[in-house]
Amino acid sequence: MGPILIVSLNPALDVTHYVAGVDWAGVNRPRTALVRPGGKGMNVASTLHALNVSVQLVGLAGGVTGNAIKTGAQALGIPAEFSDIGGESRRTFAVVDTRQEQTAVFNEPGPPVTQAEYDTFRSDYAARLADCPAVVLTGSLPAGLAGGTYGDLIAVAAEAGVPTLLDASGPALLPGVAAGPAVVKPNLAELAEVTGRPLCASDLPAVAAAARELTQAGAGAAVVTLGSDGLLAATGTDSWQAGPPELVAGNPTGAGDAVMAALALGVALDWTWPDMLAHAVALGAATAAAPVAGEFDSAVYARLAGDFRVPRLKGL
Amino acid sequence: MGPILIVSLNPALDVTHYVAGVDWAGVNRPRTALVRPGGKGMNVASTLHALNVSVQLVGLAGGVTGNAIKTGAQALGIPAEFSDIGGESRRTFAVVDTRQEQTAVFNEPGPPVTQAEYDTFRSDYAARLADCPAVVLTGSLPAGLAGGTYGDLIAVAAEAGVPTLLDASGPALLPGVAAGPAVVKPNLAELAEVTGRPLCASDLPAVAAAARELTQAGAGAAVVTLGSDGLLAATGTDSWQAGPPELVAGNPTGAGDAVMAALALGVALDWTWPDMLAHAVALGAATAAAPVAGEFDSAVYARLAGDFRVPRLKGL
Repeated sequence: MGPILIVSLNPALDVTHYVAGVDWAGVNRPRTALVRPGGKGMNVASTLHALNVSVQLVGLAGGVTGNAIKTGAQALGIPAEFSDIGGESRRTFAVVDTRQEQTAVFNEPGPPVTQAEYDTFRSDYAARLADCPAVVLTGSLPAGLAGGTYGDLIAVAAEAGVPTLLDASGPALLPGVAAGPAVVKPNLAELAEVTGRPLCASDLPAVAAAARELTQAGAGAAVVTLGSDGLLAATGTDSWQAGPPELVAGNPTGAGDAVMAALALGVALDWTWPDMLAHAVALGAATAAAPVAGEFDSAVYARLAGDFRVPRLKGL
Repeated sequence: MGPILIVSLNPALDVTHYVAGVDWAGVNRPRTALVRPGGKGMNVASTLHALNVSVQLVGLAGGVTGNAIKTGAQALGIPAEFSDIGGESRRTFAVVDTRQEQTAVFNEPGPPVTQAEYDTFRSDYAARLADCPAVVLTGSLPAGLAGGTYGDLIAVAAEAGVPTLLDASGPALLPGVAAGPAVVKPNLAELAEVTGRPLCASDLPAVAAAARELTQAGAGAAVVTLGSDGLLAATGTDSWQAGPPELVAGNPTGAGDAVMAALALGVALDWTWPDMLAHAVALGAATAAAPVAGEFDSAVYARLAGDFRVPRLKGL
């Protein structure tokens, strides 16, 4: 089995400043500045890499920020091959106020990508599908690429017989779902937007009905992340709900990407749904328990993963 | 005459995000992200470059951020040669809230520099002094370099017969002054700190007395920036005060660097003090009048530069 292929078309360099008591109208001198490669694809890749799962990150990157992303992935030991683009890759910037205990995040939009740049990437992507157990497509699309881009990449994988997992939002979501990914993973807000209905984590029957709309639209299964309420999964025939057996305090950033990592591993290894969801919830909670975004607490993961059963929702 | 040499030992990559109504506890999506090479030396160089004055920027830079600084200087057309260091150059990050009309700035500390890295730079610097009309030494010292670093570089220039201008603060200021720069340019807060006395722009005799302490300590002249009150200059024998003839609204960031640019040009061309100060005040005000930090409004500069006389302070 080759590596799980993870597509990151709009990766970022994540810069985090730690300041005790920010002056929002003056000059601050952060004690620490943390820099690491980011974006949802990078988070999924680093979670799987930490679990000793073989991964290959691919995507588009350019400029000196693109170089910093490549160098950073290399430093983390994550195999990454980005196609070059003429634009400059984006940064995200987070200011953690350690006194107020609040974090402000600034996400740059990212560079536009030309059709020729996408075509080069697409050829490279297609060539990597032989012997690939699963493909993860995750994160925002860069400007210049059509909403059907993920759908196109899912169709290419389907032709090669490789299952895909999709995490997208806005105009990229429905065309992607129509191409038939094995799993689509919206959060509650994305599911509400795509179905046009307000949704609440406490009304599981309504969430399950909305999730089933995505399976009817083409996805093999829809896994909806519900924050501290865990997950709801709808396959063509069943619905499951999985919540963590204990509440974990910490930093929820990247928990959704950890859920995606567990689902990708489950699809690659052909796990049962209850096994896959138990691992997804445990890895999501273990990520929320770690103070640094994109990392997870392996003790929490080990404790939770074998520790609870996934209830099946009957009659929803 | 060769280029004016500008030393920037701790240059930065300046990133500015524009957000209408910042959520300091949530996720923001800046409409625009502006990136340009920064630091005081870069500002002085780009102001002189815009005046068609030949400049050469030198200093220390490293890592992918150092590469971005070099690439950015090249894109601006500014001749820059940075000695490589093993550390990663710093960023500054500014969040401009266009609705609240306030700006938060985050200045990373910058990488430590080794003695061997400094020695390499120092040799390159010494080799550039032949035919050099003036040297500008400006900005914070990186960690790892002694407070006497500017003093050392001033002494090297003095041996080559090249006049120097110094903008430094904290432990770098007095040892630099002792080495005998032609001009030292503190702001009021820096002058108050180094003389140990509270100072107020409205008490010009006290400011002039404090400035004269710096000339007695070794500087040929001290030029004190007073914000919207303009400048006070003390030479060994005279004191001058120069304020703009009209108040200009705008962004004061970089106005002090524009003052330094005009002073360096005046020293290089051997202008009289009244001429030099008139240009310094006009260029400072024209920089405050431009919306982007480090740029100036050339119409304002042209109008102000010939338009007012510099009063001489008698009997101070």
